Amino acid sequence: MTFDPETTTFLIAGPVRIHPRVLRAMSTPSLNHRGDFFHGVVAEIRELLPQLFGTKGHQVVLTGSGTAGLEAVYAALLPKDGRTLVLTNGNFGERTNEIARRYSSHVTTVSAPWGEPIPVEPVATELAKGDVKAVCVVHNETSVGLANDLAALAPVVKASGALFLIDGISAVAGIPVSIDAWGIDAVVAGSQKGLAAPPGLAMVHLSDRAVAALQPGTFYLDLRAHLKSLEKNDTPWTPAVPLFLALKEALLLLKEEGLATRIERTHRLAEATRNAVDALGLELFPNRRFASDTVTAVKNPPGLGDPEVRKVLERQYNVLVQGGQGALTGKIFRVGHMGIADWPDLLVTFAALERVLSRARGTPATGASLKAIVDRMP
Amino acid sequence: MTFDPETTTFLIAGPVRIHPRVLRAMSTPSLNHRGDFFHGVVAEIRELLPQLFGTKGHQVVLTGSGTAGLEAVYAALLPKDGRTLVLTNGNFGERTNEIARRYSSHVTTVSAPWGEPIPVEPVATELAKGDVKAVCVVHNETSVGLANDLAALAPVVKASGALFLIDGISAVAGIPVSIDAWGIDAVVAGSQKGLAAPPGLAMVHLSDRAVAALQPGTFYLDLRAHLKSLEKNDTPWTPAVPLFLALKEALLLLKEEGLATRIERTHRLAEATRNAVDALGLELFPNRRFASDTVTAVKNPPGLGDPEVRKVLERQYNVLVQGGQGALTGKIFRVGHMGIADWPDLLVTFAALERVLSRARGTPATGASLKAIVDRMP
Repeated sequence: MTFDPETTTFLIAGPVRIHPRVLRAMSTPSLNHRGDFFHGVVAEIRELLPQLFGTKGHQVVLTGSGTAGLEAVYAALLPKDGRTLVLTNGNFGERTNEIARRYSSHVTTVSAPWGEPIPVEPVATELAKGDVKAVCVVHNETSVGLANDLAALAPVVKASGALFLIDGISAVAGIPVSIDAWGIDAVVAGSQKGLAAPPGLAMVHLSDRAVAALQPGTFYLDLRAHLKSLEKNDTPWTPAVPLFLALKEALLLLKEEGLATRIERTHRLAEATRNAVDALGLELFPNRRFASDTVTAVKNPPGLGDPEVRKVLERQYNVLVQGGQGALTGKIFRVGHMGIADWPDLLVTFAALERVLSRARGTPATGASLKAIVDRMP
Repeated sequence: MTFDPETTTFLIAGPVRIHPRVLRAMSTPSLNHRGDFFHGVVAEIRELLPQLFGTKGHQVVLTGSGTAGLEAVYAALLPKDGRTLVLTNGNFGERTNEIARRYSSHVTTVSAPWGEPIPVEPVATELAKGDVKAVCVVHNETSVGLANDLAALAPVVKASGALFLIDGISAVAGIPVSIDAWGIDAVVAGSQKGLAAPPGLAMVHLSDRAVAALQPGTFYLDLRAHLKSLEKNDTPWTPAVPLFLALKEALLLLKEEGLATRIERTHRLAEATRNAVDALGLELFPNRRFASDTVTAVKNPPGLGDPEVRKVLERQYNVLVQGGQGALTGKIFRVGHMGIADWPDLLVTFAALERVLSRARGTPATGASLKAIVDRMP
């Protein structure tokens, strides 16, 4: 079967499925991005952003991917003199590491094996050595399906006085990000994850002290210029107008559902997915205690790889899940269940998986994974 | 009348009107940007890009506005040691000046009054002083409705050996940009101008020697990373998928019309607009010999400002043209006639202008501007 975007069951780890209301918003004919109509759109987005981040603050929308949001933050906030601590346990932690080294001359890395959370102790040890001005961590490591335990890390970072800078790209609107309680100074969210808008926008939340510490950074992504323009419901450079219209609609959908409800629904879908994985006799890739609620990473069954599992799901059953990245290519598959993903998506995906595995194993399908999903339905 | 994007006659200087085929492309449901379907889209875009730039070369698409494209080029190509020459005669020249100063410690500016072209002699004088490694100029200064004479500037820049870096955002697919003949090393195009795609993408063309000279630049906009990924029909970071789908459709429309035909049609529309301006007894803002073919800047009639002209066009006749920027606010209005703008747009706009001016002046409308347009129709 050739990929048909109109009919595919779409559960990759982002971009995620987009509601037709959001898609339709992009077909609005051209607007003057310096006119009242668009200023009104920006004003509405600004009012809705606290609902995305779960708190008020200094919040901007950048035309660019999540990586643009990360560079905006690191370029503006990493210390030129003091130390930067980067915590990494996956592909996106490595990306943060790489960006951080462009903007900070003294970067120390604390890493954990892929699939294990960042431990608190070595972070505390590094902080105790002094002079750490910023700590960067990926909250939800999409590449390994793991959520780092920010609640545990937050107190030691807070006590050190360092800026706490979070890659929340696949966390925001998917798992709880307690910005105020954890003393987070910057969070980057991506449009195409928990919010279920199209890719191409990054939303950044900044604390008061982060705003006070902003340096020029890059030109296009200069957060000071964006904050200043937003005060007038404007953007410093021409924005991606259709994506802003889609963002507004996706934020309205999120408001209608409620942030807490979306996070709780995502959690139930994640539990159902993990139970279904167990029922199929498959293994989670990450440490189960820290398994992400937005994306479930599953080891390919012994003897089976992408051609036997993921590719059959795609070609024969029109079900799209995601493979592993880097060293995990061919070793895991990942099921995204964030944004507007829902029970029908899981049922279709696991029904197909039952069939694929029963054929590959030469044993009858039991339906156990579907029962596991039904058991977690509200 | 409240602005209605579905029915407005839309002639601002960009974003420009978008063909419904291009708008519809954006409502395609989510794709895996790392899958075969999207790789096919990128491959098709790559094949179509030489048709946008009028020549082959190293060409990339960045998720970001034209300003992102400019920063990508300046960050990667401006000299750390030698001198940078920035030529400026408008608002966008000033922007180039500002970005250049972030990346080059020795920037010299050659400027001309707004409305006048950059003269060759002072450029030659600066180049003769030696050590100039890069020359940056805005080809089509949207802010003042003027096209700089690159054909005249090119030989002296070429003779100096400096890199010739062009802001072609509102020039490409609107006026002739003779990349090879003029020895241009980098051109930045915007999606929302002559190409008539939505805003949010920048296309960059690079010469062989520009590619050889690329430095790391910024992370998100690193041209080396983009070139490397594109070889595999991929992007280094998550692209704005809907905008890429729209870009492909807009490039196909351009191919169907042909680049030369679009530029010629844009030229006829520009001539018609200038003749219509004359017929109304209005004055062009820029030196007529260098008036831009993509946007016509017109002085507000004596005694009349934005509230009496542009705002009446918008509120009473649903016709959207653009005002002046910076020091020109309230002093000029600008009519864009690039991309898929066509005769009906001009007829509606000038019919409304006839009415607005006849009312304001207390004299009957003559229809002379409409006759001027008819006279230039093919």
